[in-house]
Amino acid sequence: MEFLVQLGKNAAAAKYELQKLTTKQKDKALLAVADALIKESAEILAENEKDIIAGEKKGMHPGLLDRLRLTQERINGMAEGLRQVVELPDPIGEVIEAFERPNGLSIEKRRVPMGVIGMIYESRPNVTADAFGLCFKSGNAVILKGGSDAICSNRAITKVIRKALRTEGITEDAVQLIESTDRAVTQAFMHLKEYVDLLIPRGGAGLIKSVVENSTIPVIETGTGNCHVYIDEFADCDMAVSIIINAKTQRIGVCNACESLVIHEAVKDKVLPLLSDACKKHHVEIRGDEKVAQVIDCKPACEEDYGTEYLDYIISMKTVSSIDEAIDHINKYNTRHSEAIITENKEHAEKFLKEVDAACVYVNASTRFTDGFEFGFGAEIGISTQKLHARGPMGLKELTSYKYVIKGNGQIR
Amino acid sequence: MEFLVQLGKNAAAAKYELQKLTTKQKDKALLAVADALIKESAEILAENEKDIIAGEKKGMHPGLLDRLRLTQERINGMAEGLRQVVELPDPIGEVIEAFERPNGLSIEKRRVPMGVIGMIYESRPNVTADAFGLCFKSGNAVILKGGSDAICSNRAITKVIRKALRTEGITEDAVQLIESTDRAVTQAFMHLKEYVDLLIPRGGAGLIKSVVENSTIPVIETGTGNCHVYIDEFADCDMAVSIIINAKTQRIGVCNACESLVIHEAVKDKVLPLLSDACKKHHVEIRGDEKVAQVIDCKPACEEDYGTEYLDYIISMKTVSSIDEAIDHINKYNTRHSEAIITENKEHAEKFLKEVDAACVYVNASTRFTDGFEFGFGAEIGISTQKLHARGPMGLKELTSYKYVIKGNGQIR
Repeated sequence: MEFLVQLGKNAAAAKYELQKLTTKQKDKALLAVADALIKESAEILAENEKDIIAGEKKGMHPGLLDRLRLTQERINGMAEGLRQVVELPDPIGEVIEAFERPNGLSIEKRRVPMGVIGMIYESRPNVTADAFGLCFKSGNAVILKGGSDAICSNRAITKVIRKALRTEGITEDAVQLIESTDRAVTQAFMHLKEYVDLLIPRGGAGLIKSVVENSTIPVIETGTGNCHVYIDEFADCDMAVSIIINAKTQRIGVCNACESLVIHEAVKDKVLPLLSDACKKHHVEIRGDEKVAQVIDCKPACEEDYGTEYLDYIISMKTVSSIDEAIDHINKYNTRHSEAIITENKEHAEKFLKEVDAACVYVNASTRFTDGFEFGFGAEIGISTQKLHARGPMGLKELTSYKYVIKGNGQIR
Repeated sequence: MEFLVQLGKNAAAAKYELQKLTTKQKDKALLAVADALIKESAEILAENEKDIIAGEKKGMHPGLLDRLRLTQERINGMAEGLRQVVELPDPIGEVIEAFERPNGLSIEKRRVPMGVIGMIYESRPNVTADAFGLCFKSGNAVILKGGSDAICSNRAITKVIRKALRTEGITEDAVQLIESTDRAVTQAFMHLKEYVDLLIPRGGAGLIKSVVENSTIPVIETGTGNCHVYIDEFADCDMAVSIIINAKTQRIGVCNACESLVIHEAVKDKVLPLLSDACKKHHVEIRGDEKVAQVIDCKPACEEDYGTEYLDYIISMKTVSSIDEAIDHINKYNTRHSEAIITENKEHAEKFLKEVDAACVYVNASTRFTDGFEFGFGAEIGISTQKLHARGPMGLKELTSYKYVIKGNGQIR
């Protein structure tokens, strides 16, 4: 794996150059890359076509083929994404804290780039440009390992980015692609600890599990979302239905979609018929516990349903007799992503917000808002479901670390 | 490993209780534990004596035996440490950021406990009380795996803490000790990802490497320190000597001690004789490159010396012809811990502070200040040399995560 070590060394060298760039230099380069992507669209689309043909030949699922496919519009979207990153404030150099010690030492906590970031992701070529943009603006070198089905597309996009950087007088090793589609290479990449400071897997549960279990590099887990909405005894039932249908159906294949309802018994007779009608209208299958089945037509929910991220037009429903039972149920089955309570009772709201263990906890709003754009962070590199470093939507700041800068005049201990 | 899973379940249950405790409740319990440690000193000392006898029998190194040994004074120190933690502000519940979105959603970023923290450490029984204190105040449950040579001491200390918590009406599972000394159990502990949110190894390089390579739980690496002092061409040479002798000899076995000097050629003839005299006086062996050897008596330094954390009365010295060469050398050999420049030139200072990749970068002060107490954080659980989550001295705040609390009135996407 000598070539992999070489990529690591290149990135480690590039990071020292990148941390010296001014915001202006970085923004100018990002705009140049955006322009180059548009200008070189034909080449990128031609290479993408090769991936599509190979994908069709091997009988790839239409949904995956769709993610793999680039169009002029999608390339425009990638360029637009980079231009939006230009508009975001540069996090590097920010003084997070500053204080002076009694011995006269002045201590500053300064935001610095992470250094070298590794990304492992599935066959979505747009991630190649997105990941570069966020890593670059935050002063990091990035090594990309995209899905093997997108190899031609990723190679073309990376080539365009590197050429544009070179033209700007910036090290092209700011972005490097692992071109090998050998799984052993991916394994070795996860052990490139000497050169890579952070590894971010982005994709399905299997990919993420594999990275978490195999990497010796620190990982941020961007996880799956088994998100719940709890309809409290003090809920506005119409609001509940509106939020649940939105959280369930506005986009079914995403991690912040609602997969499971928890319903206080006191409101089940009122809210369940409303939910049943709305679900029928939106073609959502209901799997309910016994008490749900007493009120509306539904399939029975088994234990497994409560732990399943359907990513489909299916929702499980569980009744509880108290908010404590609701919180216990959610803490048992959720994936620490996004959880909502519908209630008009402030104490219940505060209890839920405090006691439910998740990156994002909501009162009276759809879980679909867990998103970097919706939070106002601009683009996001993923949504973290771990507690270390970053939790929830990760924007530019979450791709940084800090250092302590200590100034003295001869202090010793 | 059923008993291990049970410990995990206990801790996961305890974390929900702990996050509900008020600061007052936590502080009262910490004081009760401090009192209990003093009151039960005789029992703790008797158990420690068993460890000492076993250690002597197996011919343990005197330095390690000393770390293992408890005395009344050291137990008093453990109690005093807990009382100091009481004085520290409670980080939990702090609103780190708050903002409102155009759609009316109010978003708060609130500091919350990490949940369950695992600690793996060597045979230093005082760490048992220290780790409990910091984890407890920051609202976390902790599972401890101390060195097997300290098993009787750790069992006794944990027993006292758990009993005191019980008397305070607080779940004793706030602290649990893995009593098995089987290495397979430690391995299994590192895979208890379902229940443990963060694993902190504390000890020598071998222990930390093993945890980093084997754990599937997110780890904070509290690493070794190959710390440098760079004497710039614009250095105050007397200040340089004073700082270097302090950083090298004030306590030789610690991670923030200086192990290597980098010296600008322009000042070598002036500073090296001063350093040579001071090192002789403090019994420090010098290993220098050729240019150093031209000026003073020293052993030759080889490549390996530059990468070695001696933890001994030895220092390596390397000459450079520019600050850039110094920075490159340091970035090549350092362990991202603490690095210092001695200079009266502001531009050089700023360049060094910006470009050297380390948790703590100093100008004109001793690297020995990298320490939670010295930074004013109160106690510390370790010094992080990784960039993810926490860097440098880790106090209470670094043992926390955050959650986003989002309040709406029916918002949907």
